Amino acid sequence: MARFFMAGTNIKGGMAVIRGRDAEHVRVLRLRPGEDLIICDGEGTDYRCRLVYADKEQAEAEVVEVVRCPAEPSVKVTLLCGLPKGDRVDYIIQKGVEAGAFEILFFNCERCVARPETPEKKLERWQRIAEEAAKQSGRGIIPQVGWAGEFSQALDVAVKKELGLFMYETGEREALNAVLEEHKHAADMAIITGPEGGFAEFEAKLAKICGLHVCSMGERILRCETAPIVALTAAMYATGNLA
Amino acid sequence: MARFFMAGTNIKGGMAVIRGRDAEHVRVLRLRPGEDLIICDGEGTDYRCRLVYADKEQAEAEVVEVVRCPAEPSVKVTLLCGLPKGDRVDYIIQKGVEAGAFEILFFNCERCVARPETPEKKLERWQRIAEEAAKQSGRGIIPQVGWAGEFSQALDVAVKKELGLFMYETGEREALNAVLEEHKHAADMAIITGPEGGFAEFEAKLAKICGLHVCSMGERILRCETAPIVALTAAMYATGNLA
Repeated sequence: MARFFMAGTNIKGGMAVIRGRDAEHVRVLRLRPGEDLIICDGEGTDYRCRLVYADKEQAEAEVVEVVRCPAEPSVKVTLLCGLPKGDRVDYIIQKGVEAGAFEILFFNCERCVARPETPEKKLERWQRIAEEAAKQSGRGIIPQVGWAGEFSQALDVAVKKELGLFMYETGEREALNAVLEEHKHAADMAIITGPEGGFAEFEAKLAKICGLHVCSMGERILRCETAPIVALTAAMYATGNLA
Repeated sequence: MARFFMAGTNIKGGMAVIRGRDAEHVRVLRLRPGEDLIICDGEGTDYRCRLVYADKEQAEAEVVEVVRCPAEPSVKVTLLCGLPKGDRVDYIIQKGVEAGAFEILFFNCERCVARPETPEKKLERWQRIAEEAAKQSGRGIIPQVGWAGEFSQALDVAVKKELGLFMYETGEREALNAVLEEHKHAADMAIITGPEGGFAEFEAKLAKICGLHVCSMGERILRCETAPIVALTAAMYATGNLA
C-alpha cells in the first residue's frame, strides 16, 4: 500500500490534507478516490486513510484507523560505521533502514580511506536514501542519517546506550550471540563497525575501556558494508523483531 | 593472510606446488619466501603453508599445519532465490557467500521479471563472484552457484533438506525465530525467497503443501536482494555460527 510520511500533510478532525511533493506523489501513483493509503507521522504512528479526492496541488483522505506502525522494531539500534568509500555508504543506509536501524551515523577513524572534508555536504543525499528505503520497507520512522565526527565521538554516542557493541575481527572478543542473549530486553543499543581496513588495535582497546562489548561474528571476514547489516540482523533476531 | 583454493595446486609429502593462475596470484601479491599463506582444498580443510620459493610459473610452499577451516559454518544452508533483475543477482551471491551460504541457486517463478532464456550462460560469471567472495571472506569452500530451473524444481531441492523455509510477506505464517529455534541442530536447510514482485499466493500454498515452513521475518518489507541475506544471517545466528 502507498505510504507517505507527513512532511506536507495535516491531519485534523479525521481528515488528512496532503500538499506539496506528497500530493504530486499521489498523482504519480494514480491513486483514485476510494483507494487506501497510509500516512505515517514519522514517530511510529500510522494513519490508515482512504482517498477522497486528489488534484494537481492537493489531495484529501479520510482517516479510517490509527495504529502503531507494525514494522517498527521494539529496540532502537544506532549503527555507527567507520566511513567507507563510494557507494558502500549508500548500501549501508539502504539495507540498514530495511533491516530496522533506528539511526545510522558515520565517523572518521584511523584506517578510514574515505575522508570527505565536509561530509555534511553529503548528508542531504544520505537522508534521501534513508527516506526512500523507509517508505519502501514500511517503516514507521525515517531513520536519521548523520555524521558522528571522530572515533572518540562515535564511542561517546555508543556509551550512552543501554548496550554498546564493538565489532572486531581479531583478538579476545565476546561472542555476539552470548552478549545479545543477555541484553535481549535492551531498549536501545549501538553497533560500531569499521571501515575497509578495520579498526586499529588501540581503537578496540579504547572501546573496551569505555565499557563497550568487543564482539566477534565468527571467523568469516565480512566486508565493511556487510558487517553492520549482519550485526543489526542478529540484534533484531535476538530481540524478537524478526518474526 | 593470502588464501588460495586448490585449483592449480598439488600437495604431496608436506609440500604444496602452486601452478597456473594461482602462481601468478602469488607473484601479484609479492609474497616472499618465509611468508605464510593458506591453501584450501575447497572442502573445508585449510593447509597453512610457508612459501619456499616463487617464480613466474610456479611456487612452492611447505605445509606447516592442516586444520578444519574455522570460517566454515556447521550448517549447510542452500539459498534458493527467485531470479531478480540486474546486479541484484551479483549482490545476493557476494553477500550470501560472505554470510555463510553453502550453495546459492536461482529459479524462475510466476512474478520473475528477469527471464534469461539461457541463464546457463551467466553461470560462469556468477561462479567467479562466489569464488572471489569465498577467498575474501576466508571460506573453506567455494559455494556452488547454480540454476535450479522452475519454481517446482526449487521446491524439490528444498524438500530434500532437513529444514525448508519459505519466506513470504503476507497471510498465515510461522515466526522465523520460532522455527529456527526448533531446528537449530539441523545439518542442512534451504531458504526460499522471491523475486522483486514476491510470490503468487498459489506458490506459497504449494510450498506449504510440500511441507516447507512458510515464514515471516516481521512487518518490514525487505527487497528481494536483502531478504535472503537477512534470513541466512538469522539461520547462522540461531545455529551458533555467528559467534
